[in-house]
Amino acid sequence: MNNKAIGLFDSGVGGLTVLKALLQELPRENYIYLGDTARLPYGTKSKETIIRYALQCTEKLMENDLKMLVVACNTVSSVALPSITEKYPHIQIVGVVEPGAEAACQSTKNNHIAVLGTESTIKGKAYDKAILAINPKAVITGKPCPLFVGMAEEGILKGHLAEEMAKHYLKDILKQEHIPDTIVLGCTHFPLLKEAIQNVVGKDIHLVDSAQTTAKKVHAMLISSNALSDRAEGTIHFLTTDDIAKFRAVGEPFLGFSLNSSHVELVDL
Amino acid sequence: MNNKAIGLFDSGVGGLTVLKALLQELPRENYIYLGDTARLPYGTKSKETIIRYALQCTEKLMENDLKMLVVACNTVSSVALPSITEKYPHIQIVGVVEPGAEAACQSTKNNHIAVLGTESTIKGKAYDKAILAINPKAVITGKPCPLFVGMAEEGILKGHLAEEMAKHYLKDILKQEHIPDTIVLGCTHFPLLKEAIQNVVGKDIHLVDSAQTTAKKVHAMLISSNALSDRAEGTIHFLTTDDIAKFRAVGEPFLGFSLNSSHVELVDL
Repeated sequence: MNNKAIGLFDSGVGGLTVLKALLQELPRENYIYLGDTARLPYGTKSKETIIRYALQCTEKLMENDLKMLVVACNTVSSVALPSITEKYPHIQIVGVVEPGAEAACQSTKNNHIAVLGTESTIKGKAYDKAILAINPKAVITGKPCPLFVGMAEEGILKGHLAEEMAKHYLKDILKQEHIPDTIVLGCTHFPLLKEAIQNVVGKDIHLVDSAQTTAKKVHAMLISSNALSDRAEGTIHFLTTDDIAKFRAVGEPFLGFSLNSSHVELVDL
Repeated sequence: MNNKAIGLFDSGVGGLTVLKALLQELPRENYIYLGDTARLPYGTKSKETIIRYALQCTEKLMENDLKMLVVACNTVSSVALPSITEKYPHIQIVGVVEPGAEAACQSTKNNHIAVLGTESTIKGKAYDKAILAINPKAVITGKPCPLFVGMAEEGILKGHLAEEMAKHYLKDILKQEHIPDTIVLGCTHFPLLKEAIQNVVGKDIHLVDSAQTTAKKVHAMLISSNALSDRAEGTIHFLTTDDIAKFRAVGEPFLGFSLNSSHVELVDL
């Protein structure tokens, strides 16, 4: 048993979809969530900048006594995970890419998989590497969809405009000779647009949401290291680098419950 | 005569529309342009964060011997201009809000003016104050349109999707009892979407682009302070806080010419 906290971070509120999945999977754990909202989005930034910011986020979270670090951001998981692991070798670190890749490989029947993500996630090809390591026959098409991030944050989640944007991003993939049967929502914001994306691609294509698969992986790792919490109920502490009221307001649909009574602390990195 | 450089900064490439207008208006001047691309967008950040970043940008530009500072960003002009002026009282500083407000007041006949901008620009109400100072009868409707920024940067400038997004943002304004006859494009990115916006609002509504009016104001100020350059041709030096190749690629449509042969320097703030 181990009642230390699990630290999570993301460039903003997107990682709250991972926290939501963790709260459902592991409600007895203590969580510390850091959203670097002042500097979001990470997904359009260069690799060097993302690594620098990711190490600063990790350092901030490490001021607490953690048993595990969850990198709840596809961009950081794709680009900066090796740098974080190298600097912090003594803590278990979980990204969102590997669990998503595993779920995609379990889902596909025709070996054609598409990955939607931010520019950096797609450019970094981390999903390609993770998928090919499991299934070398897989054919992967990556598509950057940066405006999905802003749409999720503005609450444009379904209806004509959301579907037009989905069509814009997906038209080339849906015109391919071999259309993928599995699409990875490779950004923690994208599950909020799942309905609009599903309407555009049709019901025969399976959408993989890596938040849930990441939560299952965390659960399995805590079991194998005998580090589950034995508390009756867990706690959540939020850290943000920008306006607290905005973090509460924008975060709510991602987390699925109101943040009004939660403690949110402003920090500078 | 004064051959010192004019410094400009923006959160990213949007301010290049202001530089473009300046190059047309004042081709003999030397320009130093700083785009804080690593931390863009500013427009969704809090006032305190924007002021902090704006002072860092100003400090970087002030390492050069400048004769004037142009805040080529509506968000910073709306939120941080007093803080910059207070810290740097000995240099002429021009923002983009006042020139835009003046142009809007010259254009309107029914005294109903709409302002489109980022969240921070609209929330800060700087356009409202600047317009009312000139025309106290003006009725101003502000509308945050944050996704226009990403669309301009991704090159989604016209056609069905751009117009659908414009309809989304403008529908309430176009349903008002008194429809504005003048709309201020209160973000340096928005002139790129001018055609799509004009198609949605119709040709009877005048769109004000503050880049051009800012260039005219800079010209007038240099004349009154007897500080025009007497060089045959000016120079341009670019600074960016993120990937240089991306700055060149995304900046080109804003500036209207290729940045491939221009000197772009990576700086850390």
